[in-house]
Amino acid sequence: MKKTLTVLLATIFSIAIYSQKKNLAERLGYPKDAKLAIIHSDDLGVSHSENAASIMAMEKGSVSSASIMVPCPWFSEIAAYAQAHPAADLGLHITLTNEYKYYKWGPVTSIDKVPGLVNKNGYLYSSVDSVIQNASATEVEQEIRNQVIKGKQMGIDPTHLDAHMGTALSSLDFFKAYLKVGHEYKIPVLITSFFQPNLKTKMDSLITDKDVVVDNILSSSPGDLKTGFPAFYTNGIRNLKPGLTYLIIHTAYDDDEMRALKGDDPDWGAAWRQAEFNFFTSPECAKVLKENNVYVITWKEIRDKITRK
Amino acid sequence: MKKTLTVLLATIFSIAIYSQKKNLAERLGYPKDAKLAIIHSDDLGVSHSENAASIMAMEKGSVSSASIMVPCPWFSEIAAYAQAHPAADLGLHITLTNEYKYYKWGPVTSIDKVPGLVNKNGYLYSSVDSVIQNASATEVEQEIRNQVIKGKQMGIDPTHLDAHMGTALSSLDFFKAYLKVGHEYKIPVLITSFFQPNLKTKMDSLITDKDVVVDNILSSSPGDLKTGFPAFYTNGIRNLKPGLTYLIIHTAYDDDEMRALKGDDPDWGAAWRQAEFNFFTSPECAKVLKENNVYVITWKEIRDKITRK
Repeated sequence: MKKTLTVLLATIFSIAIYSQKKNLAERLGYPKDAKLAIIHSDDLGVSHSENAASIMAMEKGSVSSASIMVPCPWFSEIAAYAQAHPAADLGLHITLTNEYKYYKWGPVTSIDKVPGLVNKNGYLYSSVDSVIQNASATEVEQEIRNQVIKGKQMGIDPTHLDAHMGTALSSLDFFKAYLKVGHEYKIPVLITSFFQPNLKTKMDSLITDKDVVVDNILSSSPGDLKTGFPAFYTNGIRNLKPGLTYLIIHTAYDDDEMRALKGDDPDWGAAWRQAEFNFFTSPECAKVLKENNVYVITWKEIRDKITRK
Repeated sequence: MKKTLTVLLATIFSIAIYSQKKNLAERLGYPKDAKLAIIHSDDLGVSHSENAASIMAMEKGSVSSASIMVPCPWFSEIAAYAQAHPAADLGLHITLTNEYKYYKWGPVTSIDKVPGLVNKNGYLYSSVDSVIQNASATEVEQEIRNQVIKGKQMGIDPTHLDAHMGTALSSLDFFKAYLKVGHEYKIPVLITSFFQPNLKTKMDSLITDKDVVVDNILSSSPGDLKTGFPAFYTNGIRNLKPGLTYLIIHTAYDDDEMRALKGDDPDWGAAWRQAEFNFFTSPECAKVLKENNVYVITWKEIRDKITRK
């Protein structure tokens, strides 16, 4: 009898706690069933074109957040912008790969300290698989930490971390390293099993109430450019569900510099990046977001109201 | 009496040797009083624009030689070209500086091995003076050697070494390191006191009969663009003297990529590089060289007929 009462009381207590637990929207100060979206430009720092277009898309368009590749040649330019514009929502796009055939960079860490991260020419590997095969979690952790240190040293106060080509989200050990550095600096990290669905359960087991898992990812592929580009995103926005949707976009100009990077390869190239820029700086985009009652939010809100609370 | 005879015989012997000693033109198989010129594009590897324009200027224009910057982002592209075109006269433009404000690179050597070569952000210094103030000759030698090793590893058989911004020719200790690596690999190095006239006597004391000192340098400055560009070079070519003249030029397209590198700074920028490209690919240039009996030669001739003989 006493035991039954204890179980009953415990159950009532659990239900009370559960009903008090706020969802992400509420924790951020939005209605419980709000459709939240972070409209996020990746790859800043890779080129002047990517920097200039993404700044424009944030200042004049609907892009609410972006992330920066510390090891890249044009990193200094966007770091100077970040320092001069502390209100801009800029994080670090943790970069463990270098996918361009002829446009190369290495890690931030001294090469002899992270031999598993570089190919025989001292550059980061071009594919995620090569990083998984060759790099240790210790090397990955060291490089992630050094990218954060260098980013901060050069004037960026990162609002978040995310993962170029999803590399830091493509192995459980890499994810642990990435999450560990995020916790260390109290910077939220993008958490999603979009890149590696079979890791979902294991990733979920590692996260704390200071972490935020995005509910959905909305991101176009090069094929979507061919089948009608604004339609992909206008439909995507019209169909947003309550919860946090993360729009992964790439904004750059279709110019000589950006075309040079991709050579003859049209995928993920200059024209596709220009099309994304065009849509996310258009009045049509602002209109569809408004008509569908989408709350466009930033990583800074998450950082300051959840991660650092 | 015996002593006088010895002196007399020695003098006669010396005169005989002297009269037998051939000048550079003769050693290379040209007439003794030939006007020799190496028309040389610097800075390959710095950008796609510089690579593409310089390849065009060598293949279709009057440019006879060029040199490549190993630490730069676009190095891989020109290394692949060099490997596919072994007849092209390509050397290494030893790079100890990084002069662009927002477009950055570090050394080829692991940063922790050459702390004196890099600024607090891990990039090469922007000025020659900073390198002289901070780097040791040991660090410079190590980086020069590593640039040669990486160049060869990635498919270049360097015909010569020269010095970006003249850095390796701006201090006697740096020059010793540069010459030493050249001797080690039997690669001729550009030797001139153009960048640091007060080093002439000391440099001369270090060179061997396997080294070649250029007699004159012909190179435009940004000011020459304003005062009428083809005239600077047509006059320069008309006034060439017998001996070896080294034309230091920079060939690139005035495009988005190249304009991005220089920002708002017009000096040594995209328009100036396009103007040099235009002249050295023009029929006018070919005509003035021919009319003035200029022998346009390569570093490979020097390497194979002098340095490696």
